[in-house]
Amino acid sequence: MVSYKDALEIIKNEIQKLTLHQEEVDLLDSINRILAEDVTADTDMPPFNNSAMDGYAVKFSERKKWNIIGEISAGNYSSITLTKSDAVLITTGSKIPASADTVIPIEDLDVEGKTVSLKPAAKYKKGINIREKGSDLHSGQIAVNQFTKIGPKVIAALASCGKERVKVYQKLKAAILSTGDELIPVIQKPSEDKIRSSNNYSLYAAIAEVDHSPINLGFVKDDKNIVRQKIKDAFEMDIEILITSGGVSVGKYDFLKELFKELGVKEKFWRVNIKPGKPLYFGVYENKKKKILVFGLPGNPVSSLVNFNVFIKPAIDYLYHQTPIIFLTAVLQEDLKKRDNKRHFSRGFIFKGSGEWSVTSKYSQSSGSLVEMSRANCLIVLEEEKLNPVKGERVKCFLI
Amino acid sequence: MVSYKDALEIIKNEIQKLTLHQEEVDLLDSINRILAEDVTADTDMPPFNNSAMDGYAVKFSERKKWNIIGEISAGNYSSITLTKSDAVLITTGSKIPASADTVIPIEDLDVEGKTVSLKPAAKYKKGINIREKGSDLHSGQIAVNQFTKIGPKVIAALASCGKERVKVYQKLKAAILSTGDELIPVIQKPSEDKIRSSNNYSLYAAIAEVDHSPINLGFVKDDKNIVRQKIKDAFEMDIEILITSGGVSVGKYDFLKELFKELGVKEKFWRVNIKPGKPLYFGVYENKKKKILVFGLPGNPVSSLVNFNVFIKPAIDYLYHQTPIIFLTAVLQEDLKKRDNKRHFSRGFIFKGSGEWSVTSKYSQSSGSLVEMSRANCLIVLEEEKLNPVKGERVKCFLI
Repeated sequence: MVSYKDALEIIKNEIQKLTLHQEEVDLLDSINRILAEDVTADTDMPPFNNSAMDGYAVKFSERKKWNIIGEISAGNYSSITLTKSDAVLITTGSKIPASADTVIPIEDLDVEGKTVSLKPAAKYKKGINIREKGSDLHSGQIAVNQFTKIGPKVIAALASCGKERVKVYQKLKAAILSTGDELIPVIQKPSEDKIRSSNNYSLYAAIAEVDHSPINLGFVKDDKNIVRQKIKDAFEMDIEILITSGGVSVGKYDFLKELFKELGVKEKFWRVNIKPGKPLYFGVYENKKKKILVFGLPGNPVSSLVNFNVFIKPAIDYLYHQTPIIFLTAVLQEDLKKRDNKRHFSRGFIFKGSGEWSVTSKYSQSSGSLVEMSRANCLIVLEEEKLNPVKGERVKCFLI
Repeated sequence: MVSYKDALEIIKNEIQKLTLHQEEVDLLDSINRILAEDVTADTDMPPFNNSAMDGYAVKFSERKKWNIIGEISAGNYSSITLTKSDAVLITTGSKIPASADTVIPIEDLDVEGKTVSLKPAAKYKKGINIREKGSDLHSGQIAVNQFTKIGPKVIAALASCGKERVKVYQKLKAAILSTGDELIPVIQKPSEDKIRSSNNYSLYAAIAEVDHSPINLGFVKDDKNIVRQKIKDAFEMDIEILITSGGVSVGKYDFLKELFKELGVKEKFWRVNIKPGKPLYFGVYENKKKKILVFGLPGNPVSSLVNFNVFIKPAIDYLYHQTPIIFLTAVLQEDLKKRDNKRHFSRGFIFKGSGEWSVTSKYSQSSGSLVEMSRANCLIVLEEEKLNPVKGERVKCFLI
């Protein structure tokens, strides 16, 4: 049995050996993808001195009155030459005439016919309200770094750099297979000792939610021959990750570990000192052509999803240089039972109290409580040495 | 000019009048959609008493030794009848025989041939390690509430309720039109006083990121006839929201406000006491068949995206009953200039310092600094009455 930290390190160490492939996509198709290149500005940004306000452009002096000699709006520049007595009406974003150096906002001015004068109470300084050419970025400088996740603000920067198409990393392809004699399809109603197969849905959604490509292999019975064939088929697929659920605990029905070995998977660890999700298996399948990370998650729906959140998601984030999980510190609203030296990931509901964050752990901590988990919004991290945290204690949480 | 709070209230009041349409989708296609129905459990969850551990099921007594009379694994129930001297090997999740009431974990037991005995140091109590039928939820109870956003944990609950298809709300359709004589296509290189059109990209991505449907209408010159026709066409489309950028400031090129009026849009407000993004226009177009919310955002790329984040996103969240923006309190790392009584949304970069959150505002606050904004990860909210916050002060931030 390995510790949580060691297990995560082992996974990170293996995932970073995957080859990241690139592809080029249209800018509008790049949303939520990871940029695979540094994108540099091909022009100064802004490309010209422009006005930060609607106002009048002047050549700075001590004057308080000017003759209006023209106007410039965005996209309608005219190269007017100003003397100290001249002013040009200019709108926000418009290019400033070379001979002007100051923009006085319209609210500080009175206009009368062809003259404009400073309001009695108003003042102005040389150089105000001008956004200088290149003040945001100079031509040739990096505008957006490789490994940036592309969202609304980044896409605007990429558009401004002239990137109609961008290089992004291909999505990881992760196949999901559930195993278990107890599983029935969602459309059937459970009878006797059967339950509906939900892990292929939740793990599919989990992969999709982190913007990678899930492949649903469905579920199969605990029949060694069937499972073997399914895994063999998966290893023939163009995937980087295989996630199974079920069959990794102890006992004659938990034969996945042996099957993986038989099929050439190198076991990296089995069982982690955490709760829920202890029986986690991790191995690597490799041949000349490919490398597939193999995660054998426990069959329990709560455990498998917790394992995804605390191992697979952080590892994928690490591979793509994404900011790791944001932890929030919150005040525990009830005592929590923890009598062992495992690391616990307890289901909680975090909310903003008066000032501080609060987290309630009223949700059942049973790994059988799937509906209860679906109502939680965070996992509370209780480290190995922590025992029985009490109401009022501050605990570390992250959103799920 | 209205205050930020009033402006947001006006928008919320109008958006809530939109009719929310429903559609039915396959469960795997429901990721990130909003559930349009309460989903009830059609069976107890779990559907039967089952074991929370790998262990031996017994009928509770003071005994410390039992005869092994059988085994039950998940999905392989057999209705064994136990006496007080009997034990049945049982795996996690397996149905408990009716005559057993307690599961002793395997790690507390020694097995020798056909007998199993309690380890000298181990203890057990009546009823332990049994997940009772219906303990998560009873048949007929609501498992997932209407307006829940469907993610991995919720999809598992829906699958367990037998929902192969679910009713979700249709996505909002939002058309995006940029206006401005200064705009050129992304593929062209800016010369003279032109800039690349980036707002249609960023606003498209912003709508997509909140899981609704953007429609890109591109950009047009500040020509009243062309813009009029474009808006008329948009009003013929099947959309709920029209977002324009540019043309809402002061001056003869800012004619959108008048055009909206001419085309029958009822103005709800124009100009909000905020920075950046003051010239925001909001109105409602309505005829017998439809209602379209019209947002006239300023043309400035930073301002338009800030406006989206502080008005349109919160309003959409409100319409779909989603948790509003999470605010974080962070320690300001530098003095920030704020000399007016506007509400400011300053670009910042928030990070976890030692214990508390910290936020640096080193990013240029010029609304011309698009690249700088693309590197920010939050907006710092400086309320109207707040002036010149200083290094070390605690400020309210939200992630963007």
